[in-house]
Amino acid sequence: MSITAPAGFAASGVAAGLKASGARDLAVVHNLGPLQNAAAVFTSNRCQANPVIWSKQVASDGIVSAVVLNSGGANCYTGTEGFQTSHATAEAAAEQLGVSAGDVVICSTGLIGEQLDRAALISGVEQASAALSEDEAGGLAAAEAIMTTDTHPKQAVVVGDGCSIGGMAKGAGMLAPGLATMLVVITTDAALDSAALDRALRAATRVTFDRLDSDGCMSTNDTVVLLASGASGVTPGEDEFALALTDVCRDLALQLQGDAEGASHDIAIEVVHAATEDDAVNVARAVSRSNLFKAAIFGNDPNWGRVLAAVGTTDAEFDPYGIDVAINGVQVCTAGEPDQPRDLVDLAPRATSILIDLHAGDHAATILTNDLTHDYVHENSAYAS
Amino acid sequence: MSITAPAGFAASGVAAGLKASGARDLAVVHNLGPLQNAAAVFTSNRCQANPVIWSKQVASDGIVSAVVLNSGGANCYTGTEGFQTSHATAEAAAEQLGVSAGDVVICSTGLIGEQLDRAALISGVEQASAALSEDEAGGLAAAEAIMTTDTHPKQAVVVGDGCSIGGMAKGAGMLAPGLATMLVVITTDAALDSAALDRALRAATRVTFDRLDSDGCMSTNDTVVLLASGASGVTPGEDEFALALTDVCRDLALQLQGDAEGASHDIAIEVVHAATEDDAVNVARAVSRSNLFKAAIFGNDPNWGRVLAAVGTTDAEFDPYGIDVAINGVQVCTAGEPDQPRDLVDLAPRATSILIDLHAGDHAATILTNDLTHDYVHENSAYAS
Repeated sequence: MSITAPAGFAASGVAAGLKASGARDLAVVHNLGPLQNAAAVFTSNRCQANPVIWSKQVASDGIVSAVVLNSGGANCYTGTEGFQTSHATAEAAAEQLGVSAGDVVICSTGLIGEQLDRAALISGVEQASAALSEDEAGGLAAAEAIMTTDTHPKQAVVVGDGCSIGGMAKGAGMLAPGLATMLVVITTDAALDSAALDRALRAATRVTFDRLDSDGCMSTNDTVVLLASGASGVTPGEDEFALALTDVCRDLALQLQGDAEGASHDIAIEVVHAATEDDAVNVARAVSRSNLFKAAIFGNDPNWGRVLAAVGTTDAEFDPYGIDVAINGVQVCTAGEPDQPRDLVDLAPRATSILIDLHAGDHAATILTNDLTHDYVHENSAYAS
Repeated sequence: MSITAPAGFAASGVAAGLKASGARDLAVVHNLGPLQNAAAVFTSNRCQANPVIWSKQVASDGIVSAVVLNSGGANCYTGTEGFQTSHATAEAAAEQLGVSAGDVVICSTGLIGEQLDRAALISGVEQASAALSEDEAGGLAAAEAIMTTDTHPKQAVVVGDGCSIGGMAKGAGMLAPGLATMLVVITTDAALDSAALDRALRAATRVTFDRLDSDGCMSTNDTVVLLASGASGVTPGEDEFALALTDVCRDLALQLQGDAEGASHDIAIEVVHAATEDDAVNVARAVSRSNLFKAAIFGNDPNWGRVLAAVGTTDAEFDPYGIDVAINGVQVCTAGEPDQPRDLVDLAPRATSILIDLHAGDHAATILTNDLTHDYVHENSAYAS
């Protein structure tokens, strides 16, 4: 169960003909109410796709009735014609669902710089609107329709005290922060207003999707939208809701990491005893973006020098010769000198842990990343063909 | 001819047993005078190797008599014992050459976090000092001794009006800026003081080595040292000398790019009409660090959306929908919309040109990078083994 687990939501996924493979490529999520409150976060990339430009305006008033998502094309850098395609898609959904086009969020994913087939898209919206279902099958079909290089649909649900939260996500490459890092729809039947949803969503994404940095590349289309139907009639405490929402976001983020293109290791880079949380994030992110470090992990090589070489490129507070590094529990470097022999480190498991102790304060953060593999290069060298 | 082309320099390269292969791994460059003026730039990585810590102090007074360089180990994060190894190496060279240890620059390259074999190093210094030669063979042997994953030695020479400049370089991975990006020794028989050498070296490296960003990874050991013997008796004009020095640095930078680990394309990313030179550099560098862009070029895929997605991560001045992109002379994007069909772009040649017009001012800059290939991943996943 996922986005249709909370009461008040219907979803569907159909094959609109946007993907050459004939697979499902268009999803609709409809908030049946009684509330239609929402919050959304978008990529911080300055080069934003037409659906992002459209949807930022839609979400700005905190009311979203439906979300239309398509794979098979990003509709980015496609000019006025591309923007009109996003607009026409929203109009088509509005007509089918009896809502206002100004309350329909549009999300697209795929190749940049190619026009989407507008007629296929609109026909797909009609088909998907007819197929809407409040059952588990509807949520699953939607999660399948937004997949690109994902190998499986990604769903999560947390059931709380009288209300619940469900989510779906797509994303396997171009995963780096900029608020969101992928397309994500989260639903809840909690009765919360848009301002409360916005606070909870920003708190949750800041420590989950924003800390997933699979390949350092920030997408033009990233969107995370949270829809509240209020159908449970329950208004949870804000903190309680934010914690549950964070659990859903973390679950989805870990699924995205685990399905990252070509990856053979899921790497958690934890920085502790940093002077500030920003320092911890910056140091962990610098390591997560070192191709040499990522290639070493692929080769099961505990090359901790490459960790420190990346740490040294940041302006975080630390003494370069006061840093400890542990890999999978083996402390290979203490205060800038070799400690345990590197051949004690077992990098065979997919789950990989890098612990960096800056000895500079009381803050900590973890960035999730992946290794750099032959398969990553292969998948991304032939994507457009 | 390279570092021994200018008058007043002797060089040698020997096998000291630091490399398991038995190849040459230790070089000495001796400035025979009459002047021993020098300038040097070092990595801006905060995690600096012991030879860098030693050599910064040596070069700070503008006098350098000799340079000892070794491959087979970086002597980085090796603690007090490692620093003493650098010191002992300088003492050994000083004794052999009849100079002060405080005027001997030490450069090391190889794996981080392992102690160098000090006895082998000192015995190598003795052997190399005995083999010093002012002939071409001496310069070539030195250039060979500093190779790591380089496939060939890298040398350059510019002959000016009565004086000349020669250079050698090593570097094939961990190539990213931070002043230098590799080990480079440049010699000249021009009669210039240390301050003039420093100004010329900083001007030259800023637009050459600093704009080479093969894999985004900044080394802990980068050093560029410029030695002037004054043996020609000629004092060139400062501007003339800086231009000739820039030519030598550019020549060596292009050789480094052309020999980058596993690369199949040499990519020049030129940003024009930027509001500032910094903007141009930042935009070009962001593109040069996009793994998705680099993997696409490896696959001969002119995926210009990945160029714009990288441009959009910067804070340079531009209108996101006012950018043009050309790949190998084909303008694929004009003002944020598709222009010429991407299949007109021929990416088969190794030399690859990306032209990004920001339409925001009169400044320009070019960053040199490489593609992301299977071979890069392969070479860097097994480096330590």
